[in-house]
Amino acid sequence: MSYFRENIERMEGYSPGFQPKGEGWIKLNTNENPFPPSPKVLEALRQAIDGRLRLYPSSGADRVRETIGRVYGVDKECVIVGNGCDEVLSIAARAFLGEGQVLLMTRPTYTLYRVLGQIQGAKVLEIPLNDDFTLQEELFSQNAQLTFISNPNPPSGILYAKADMKRLCEGSAGVVVIDEAYADFAEGNCLDLVGQHDNVVIARSLSKTLSLAGLRVGFGIADRELIRGMMKVKDSYNVSSLSQVGAAAALEDVDYTLEKVREVCREREVLTEGLWALGWKVFPSQANFVFTLPAELPASEIYEELFRRKILVRYFDTPETKDGLRITIGSPEENRRVLEAVRAIIGGKER
Amino acid sequence: MSYFRENIERMEGYSPGFQPKGEGWIKLNTNENPFPPSPKVLEALRQAIDGRLRLYPSSGADRVRETIGRVYGVDKECVIVGNGCDEVLSIAARAFLGEGQVLLMTRPTYTLYRVLGQIQGAKVLEIPLNDDFTLQEELFSQNAQLTFISNPNPPSGILYAKADMKRLCEGSAGVVVIDEAYADFAEGNCLDLVGQHDNVVIARSLSKTLSLAGLRVGFGIADRELIRGMMKVKDSYNVSSLSQVGAAAALEDVDYTLEKVREVCREREVLTEGLWALGWKVFPSQANFVFTLPAELPASEIYEELFRRKILVRYFDTPETKDGLRITIGSPEENRRVLEAVRAIIGGKER
Repeated sequence: MSYFRENIERMEGYSPGFQPKGEGWIKLNTNENPFPPSPKVLEALRQAIDGRLRLYPSSGADRVRETIGRVYGVDKECVIVGNGCDEVLSIAARAFLGEGQVLLMTRPTYTLYRVLGQIQGAKVLEIPLNDDFTLQEELFSQNAQLTFISNPNPPSGILYAKADMKRLCEGSAGVVVIDEAYADFAEGNCLDLVGQHDNVVIARSLSKTLSLAGLRVGFGIADRELIRGMMKVKDSYNVSSLSQVGAAAALEDVDYTLEKVREVCREREVLTEGLWALGWKVFPSQANFVFTLPAELPASEIYEELFRRKILVRYFDTPETKDGLRITIGSPEENRRVLEAVRAIIGGKER
Repeated sequence: MSYFRENIERMEGYSPGFQPKGEGWIKLNTNENPFPPSPKVLEALRQAIDGRLRLYPSSGADRVRETIGRVYGVDKECVIVGNGCDEVLSIAARAFLGEGQVLLMTRPTYTLYRVLGQIQGAKVLEIPLNDDFTLQEELFSQNAQLTFISNPNPPSGILYAKADMKRLCEGSAGVVVIDEAYADFAEGNCLDLVGQHDNVVIARSLSKTLSLAGLRVGFGIADRELIRGMMKVKDSYNVSSLSQVGAAAALEDVDYTLEKVREVCREREVLTEGLWALGWKVFPSQANFVFTLPAELPASEIYEELFRRKILVRYFDTPETKDGLRITIGSPEENRRVLEAVRAIIGGKER
């Protein structure tokens, strides 16, 4: 006999990307930003390391909410701050999705969505994407209490049209969470859908754009009624005081962020062109990673060979992710070394 | 029509204690430790503020788990680390408690338990305590998928006998979570029940004993099979890298911790005796707070008068908490000022 709920017993947990120990790795497997956080963030954090850590943090992460309100031009009552974007998604699942109800998602996408549905004991409905990772019409005719859609969507990095996201919201009797963890690297986002639809949550992360994966801060923006209910579900003190300090400082340093985002986008071009030049297919990514189908060898072999050279990329062993590799955009030097390594592996000549 | 699940719509969220803004408050309302964290914690945190924050933290909080394993003499596979003890409780609720199943708790106790049950859509069964806050026999004859019991139990601070906790585990077909957030201030704990019962989770907090409420770290110790399943439910990166660094350093500095715990316990005596001397009833607390029934005026009035003097204590407006005040043990100076203020309020003479 198990003490666990049946759905928990049956499910597998989410598998985060491998985290190497020791030095010398080029880590391009979990979509971290290659640049350090803003110096202003580090300074603000240093100033906050003192006896005040004995006190509980602001329950609502008030200063972070206010900063987000100001930066994104929304009322702070329309913002919820989470222990990472993952927690915003988890709060949505607990708030909107009961046992036996339907969670709608695409396949492939961020596999955490499925896990969150399973934890709720929900029916998880995964609509396959087309071969080029675009949306199938079938997605728009479902009846779900909750929809998770990532835009841009991993592993391809493709950005869906805002008109499609709008259709999803209009066609749904439930809540649609648009996970925009990568939207800062894209040409557009769906933030203005919040004013138009009372059933949409825009989820954002500070991990990628603001180089703060270590601090665990994400947020959701939605109609204030949705936020009000989600606040009831979140833990009372869900974001540490240091994370709040770092998040507020990072969100305020817009210039630094934009500069680094531009640099990542430039490097995305470099990596894309380098892979194209080898004859590898690369999907048109609007995120801080690219998804590529190697030409000569199976992706799993390339993965292993790169691993041997202490270069970590992500290989998903599932039919829907084809025979591809997801490679995070690294620093210029890292990207250069990836291309060099790939050329060596496939026996190509150095440029 | 609401987008929320019915149980979420109906419930009220947990109300954390008031957090004053501005200076000059004596804050004795949320059971924080009056002393700062160990200097070794602050130093370790300072060393960790750098570009590594761009990277995700250890998913399993490995170093913290290892440290807990060493300090408490358990295998690290028997430990789960949470974003505060609250998250450990929330993970347990999601892992063990399905819709319509039974959550067992006492009344009064930590009211978050009820909220966690409501979020799961569970039936929350609250067994009243006796008038002196001891356990009723009725608690031991229930059939619950999950039991939350706090030991020592707020707001009284009373410590239940280990034999009773053992009976709860033996009598339950479900999981029993013993919330030992305050156990370091008590004469005993139930840690060794883990080796004896495969259905018990001991939940601990770093907020009170280790003066780290701001960092949000708690943990659970249980049979490895329980931990294995709970790990599936937790977010992949649920504890920030700085929180992991601070937690490990704090857990290692046992001497500092013991010294501060002894000081809090000494001050608990001072405050208890001071209130007794006024004729106020004080329950025999084994936690870092005392629960007292004022003699002359209603507790709500004392609360207001203390608030006017910028002294914050906790007053619960519920029948089961009688007409009492919960006062966190402060620093020697703070406790002296509380007693002084109380004497002034009830018109007693200054010593």
